Amino acid sequence: MMAAPAEGSATLGPMSPTATPTQGAFITIDGPDGGGKTTQAERLRDHLAARGVSVFLTREPGGTWLGERVRQVLLARTGAEAAPTEPLTDALLFNAARRQIVGEVIRPALRAGTTIICARFADSTLAYQGYGAGVPLDRLRVLADLATDGLVPDLTIVLDLPVEAGLARKSPSDVTRFEAEFDLAFHGRVRAGFLAIAQAEPLRVAVVDATPDADTVAATIASVVDDRLGLASEPEAMHVRTTG
Amino acid sequence: MMAAPAEGSATLGPMSPTATPTQGAFITIDGPDGGGKTTQAERLRDHLAARGVSVFLTREPGGTWLGERVRQVLLARTGAEAAPTEPLTDALLFNAARRQIVGEVIRPALRAGTTIICARFADSTLAYQGYGAGVPLDRLRVLADLATDGLVPDLTIVLDLPVEAGLARKSPSDVTRFEAEFDLAFHGRVRAGFLAIAQAEPLRVAVVDATPDADTVAATIASVVDDRLGLASEPEAMHVRTTG
Repeated sequence: MMAAPAEGSATLGPMSPTATPTQGAFITIDGPDGGGKTTQAERLRDHLAARGVSVFLTREPGGTWLGERVRQVLLARTGAEAAPTEPLTDALLFNAARRQIVGEVIRPALRAGTTIICARFADSTLAYQGYGAGVPLDRLRVLADLATDGLVPDLTIVLDLPVEAGLARKSPSDVTRFEAEFDLAFHGRVRAGFLAIAQAEPLRVAVVDATPDADTVAATIASVVDDRLGLASEPEAMHVRTTG
Repeated sequence: MMAAPAEGSATLGPMSPTATPTQGAFITIDGPDGGGKTTQAERLRDHLAARGVSVFLTREPGGTWLGERVRQVLLARTGAEAAPTEPLTDALLFNAARRQIVGEVIRPALRAGTTIICARFADSTLAYQGYGAGVPLDRLRVLADLATDGLVPDLTIVLDLPVEAGLARKSPSDVTRFEAEFDLAFHGRVRAGFLAIAQAEPLRVAVVDATPDADTVAATIASVVDDRLGLASEPEAMHVRTTG
């Protein structure tokens, strides 16, 4: 599952306003398929935990009892006899799972001082259902704002890689409706969408090249996150942030 | 499952603008639990079909492959270990099923000249998640407008009955999360919500007393619908409207 080794790169904006000592940071890892979001989210969790940060890892769609059930509906291959699911139907379902995880998991954790790492969040809906499938972006923004009560990540890592490379990395057991029932042009628009979001919001979104090996990508992400959270120059044993 | 016999009554507004000969009418049957919506929707379908109207019966949430899967998620009892589902999560899920049925079933049928009878529609989300569970009505209206591209029924029949009577009519196999996990006060607000909607939109919404026996209620609904569709004084054999 490793891509050819290459130097990882990160496109960084200036420091964004992030967590106060009493509020956890909300970090999302997003991007096209096959970029290694799950692996890198786990690596980042381990990195932050080793630095003494109270951290909790979750994912979208899912992360709650209800959300995991919605995930099954969303990712299952469409029945042979069934009409295609409308892109806005998908967006409503993703936002239903989002509403639940924000209210049940993310906001309570942030309030308690825990940093949240979430694999995928609202940028995915903009990229897939908006840039990819053509739902007007303003409608998707209204929907996400409604579902999250305006919650926006403090920092989003977009794991970027060419579409063909990403799809080639997916194991057959990991192929969902979105890889199976949408074409390369769709996935190309999705990738371009993530890059457009990053370009529009450089303070929040950092693009990390996901083509190097996982260790290299993990080191790049760790460096970006340490910079943004103000942990950059501290050794792991120093625990610049302690949370309950 | 029949309630005590009593005179059926209908609260009617003036004639509303309904279908032209080339467009089917969109009729919804809505109201609190236990009012007999499924039975009465079938009776109304049979009545209209006997008058030569091309008619198709469906329901919400459901009516599509995707929607029936969402229905299972929505109506299943919450897992013992799970947090309650947020009311806005429910609203997003109902609107996801709604988006799909509007695009896949309702609009194509109406365009083809078929009259649609749908058991439950957007008024249910206003009544349950809005009046019942406290989600601001303006947010629910934004959501429904987004999900339906502004589709509003030509005629809505609200089958009204006291909460206790409605809940007593549900057979154990028919009890969903909404009867099992919400209290009488909630269901009282839902009923009041439907009546408030009817009062605000008398041209679209007719309240029919659902406490009489099913035959009486069916006759009242038939009379209301015939009035609104302009079929009122025609014998069944006359087929004033024929559709392809």
